[in-house]
Amino acid sequence: MSATRRELSEGTLFTDFYQLTMAQLYFRQGLGLRRARFDYFYRSNPNYGDHAAGYCVAAGLEWLIEWMLATRPTAAELDRLRGLEGRSGKRLFDDDFLSFLAKHGSFDGLRLLAVPEGRVVHPNVPLAVVEGPLAAAQLIETALLNHLNYQTLVATKAARIRDAARGGAVFEFGMRRAHERGANAAARAALIGGAELSSNTGMSLVMGVKPAGTHAHSMVQAFIALGGSELDAFTAYAELYPDDCVLLVDTVDTLASGVPNAIRVFSRLKRSGHRPVGIRLDSGDLAHLAVQSARQLDAAGFPEVAIVLSNDLDELVIWQIVTQIQQEAPRYGVDPTHLLGRLVYGVGTALVTSRGASSLDGVYKLVAIEDAGVLRPAIKLSETEAKVLNPGDKKVWRIYDGRGKATADLVTLAEEDPIHDRPLELRHPTADHYYRCLGPGDVDLVEPLLEEVVHEGRRLGETPTLDQLRLRCAADLERLDPGVKRLMNPHVYHVSLSQRLWEYKKGLVASLRRDIEAEA
Amino acid sequence: MSATRRELSEGTLFTDFYQLTMAQLYFRQGLGLRRARFDYFYRSNPNYGDHAAGYCVAAGLEWLIEWMLATRPTAAELDRLRGLEGRSGKRLFDDDFLSFLAKHGSFDGLRLLAVPEGRVVHPNVPLAVVEGPLAAAQLIETALLNHLNYQTLVATKAARIRDAARGGAVFEFGMRRAHERGANAAARAALIGGAELSSNTGMSLVMGVKPAGTHAHSMVQAFIALGGSELDAFTAYAELYPDDCVLLVDTVDTLASGVPNAIRVFSRLKRSGHRPVGIRLDSGDLAHLAVQSARQLDAAGFPEVAIVLSNDLDELVIWQIVTQIQQEAPRYGVDPTHLLGRLVYGVGTALVTSRGASSLDGVYKLVAIEDAGVLRPAIKLSETEAKVLNPGDKKVWRIYDGRGKATADLVTLAEEDPIHDRPLELRHPTADHYYRCLGPGDVDLVEPLLEEVVHEGRRLGETPTLDQLRLRCAADLERLDPGVKRLMNPHVYHVSLSQRLWEYKKGLVASLRRDIEAEA
Repeated sequence: MSATRRELSEGTLFTDFYQLTMAQLYFRQGLGLRRARFDYFYRSNPNYGDHAAGYCVAAGLEWLIEWMLATRPTAAELDRLRGLEGRSGKRLFDDDFLSFLAKHGSFDGLRLLAVPEGRVVHPNVPLAVVEGPLAAAQLIETALLNHLNYQTLVATKAARIRDAARGGAVFEFGMRRAHERGANAAARAALIGGAELSSNTGMSLVMGVKPAGTHAHSMVQAFIALGGSELDAFTAYAELYPDDCVLLVDTVDTLASGVPNAIRVFSRLKRSGHRPVGIRLDSGDLAHLAVQSARQLDAAGFPEVAIVLSNDLDELVIWQIVTQIQQEAPRYGVDPTHLLGRLVYGVGTALVTSRGASSLDGVYKLVAIEDAGVLRPAIKLSETEAKVLNPGDKKVWRIYDGRGKATADLVTLAEEDPIHDRPLELRHPTADHYYRCLGPGDVDLVEPLLEEVVHEGRRLGETPTLDQLRLRCAADLERLDPGVKRLMNPHVYHVSLSQRLWEYKKGLVASLRRDIEAEA
Repeated sequence: MSATRRELSEGTLFTDFYQLTMAQLYFRQGLGLRRARFDYFYRSNPNYGDHAAGYCVAAGLEWLIEWMLATRPTAAELDRLRGLEGRSGKRLFDDDFLSFLAKHGSFDGLRLLAVPEGRVVHPNVPLAVVEGPLAAAQLIETALLNHLNYQTLVATKAARIRDAARGGAVFEFGMRRAHERGANAAARAALIGGAELSSNTGMSLVMGVKPAGTHAHSMVQAFIALGGSELDAFTAYAELYPDDCVLLVDTVDTLASGVPNAIRVFSRLKRSGHRPVGIRLDSGDLAHLAVQSARQLDAAGFPEVAIVLSNDLDELVIWQIVTQIQQEAPRYGVDPTHLLGRLVYGVGTALVTSRGASSLDGVYKLVAIEDAGVLRPAIKLSETEAKVLNPGDKKVWRIYDGRGKATADLVTLAEEDPIHDRPLELRHPTADHYYRCLGPGDVDLVEPLLEEVVHEGRRLGETPTLDQLRLRCAADLERLDPGVKRLMNPHVYHVSLSQRLWEYKKGLVASLRRDIEAEA
């Protein structure tokens, strides 16, 4: 990529244009440095069509932080903005605004609070909160959404796929059909959410895991085209990688040629003191071929060799494969539990493009702005009740019951204290007659979810390691009700407003509606 | 992004790991510099679920060329590979291979032939051909697929959306829900395939078009939260951008507040000699609101003001909107043709994620390898007849009939001359009894599709401008049968093999099957 393209397309100008036209308007109105608060949240869990998620796994935050701390307008970017003309031929951006942007167009004045990466999260709960000068807080919108929406989408899909794999390992193989450089964000999010390894060499090295991968059909084809055979190809591969030998067995004929040839090669490896690692099946009826391959491998004395499955897998296909193996394996004398334990799932396109739900509907909304020293709530009406914002300065909490399971997420006004207040009154965000009241015996723990991670240009706390992110994710999944994790038709997790926030919102909406009617 | 992350994740190591393990095997076998040929093609047009494409628009090639000419292994990359260990704790990559990679791991030895960007293309036709040393030709696979699959997918969706818009302009608004940095590739592909403008500021500047965008709901909300009104917000915006004034009218109430306020502001702009540009509708029944807004704008003397529609649009939603307007507008005294002519469609998520078909199934297959100075065909059998490769050195052609319409794409052996050979015998790739024979009167023009674009580290010919790419695309769409362009259930465009290629392939498959049976 040319240096110019990178500078113009990955820094401050990696933004929707209206953020800049609005920033100039705020500057012109004397509002550019006015303190404002924006909430990031998503409205609904991914719905893949025939199945749907009951939760999400937050991801993308650390890359967002890295971007916001490193990005500030460059001379070249400001020059290009200076050159932009409107329809009249006059410049769109004036020099005084560009000077303001040079000085205040970085994100050093912002506070960022967020639910830490790797945590399980739910719809309509603020997952990130930006507070600071209006112009900068507006300018960060596009990049914030771009970073958080996509990685959250992929980490969620990875968690589901891992769940479907029932203990079998999941490898991320998707970069060839990922959305261009999004492949790298995908690999990272997949590793956080549920993939053990990735075929993406560069990102694996960045993340500190071994890259995964062996060989393709082309290697076997090349040997055959030059007058050799599949066995020659396998032999050459095993000689070069005697302790890391996974053989792709479906180039010619899986059961008649591939597996028998793999067994020949594995036997030689074993005799010379090496441990063959596995075979890979990439076409055909994977469940049936896994059973038959296991049968051949077991008979030949290789019950520990892994069987890697790939070819357009997703959580439903894996679920089906698992079910089919449970039914079919015993008929062929293969122990299904043992077979499932040796399977590895290579998942590509469906994971990195979140097939069926290729986007997360995360939004970034102004909820408060300073006036005479205090934050005043901002609201937006909508014909859809669920789309009316939760205004003002708020906090978010997770409530655990006596089983240690998360029972609800709660959004409150900033000054409330749900850790000590009892009973806790939980209101449904839109349906007025849905109401829950939790007494002292119903609540085991109330946990605040938002942490301040950036304060005026500095990262607060430590950047988590991949292992820490994975542990967070696993711990939260463990505390989730099994019904919420169901792959299809999951149980709806409760997201509630506190009684006081609910009343506050109702009051603001009513007052705004009165104003509009008075004006009309 | 840290410099280390960029270096490791966007250069040579932006690849599936198995390309590297295979490259070492080829090197070890003395095959690393053996001349090979790989074909890139996709198997099926995007199927969005309830609708499907009848063609694709090729895109991504120029960025691939830029990447391949700029990328070569760096010392840091080689160091990281040197540090990789296998399961035994021994290094995976030996020093002699890493030296080979340092010398031959760039793509300077490759020839790249391709169907030029922007052209309409079809399944199972080689769209790019890589010829050169086996190791380098294998190493480029992942990046080639990553660049071409995604941009082709988005350019195709953009062409369809533009088609549905029936003359209305399409703007790309998708970066907030695009797959991370893939947002930039998306903007480019959308501009090639059918979008007039994009909200992506950086990429618009890179591509030489004006970025599109005005203001968000947050601007109106900020004014209201500070005690002002929607009208105050519109007024401030119009004063700052008097000649570029597009107002978002749905923050409060579209027809009762937004449009009347916009008209007040437009009237003032008009009196002071400016031309108001438009309004934007972002929620509700867009077709109905467009008709009612047009009615108000017409009555107020603004029949030329544009109406921008946004909110989860795709080609089917736009098609519906157009149909609904055609039916509903006359009832309210609004001329539907005039209204459709002033509409602009802001399309985001569905465009950049190609909703419903979030990937193109492009593959990269070894089709020939040199032996004793000649290219020997490589083939791969498959239980699925359609997945058996077309082997060897081939050429691809487009056949136009007397109407100037493209009637078929033809894949032939390299030495054939379909420009002069008559009759042309066209075989269906898999169904043996489908057969077409074109005489001199049936064929107006036979056009070769592949051009050599890279030769040993040099770009051949000129890098096309955006305007040239758009013209190519428009010209090809014009020469496509309307049935093939149908949004739903399109007519199947013919992709054929020449009689000689068909016989050659049949012979190779039969011979390989005999070999396998003999071995078994």
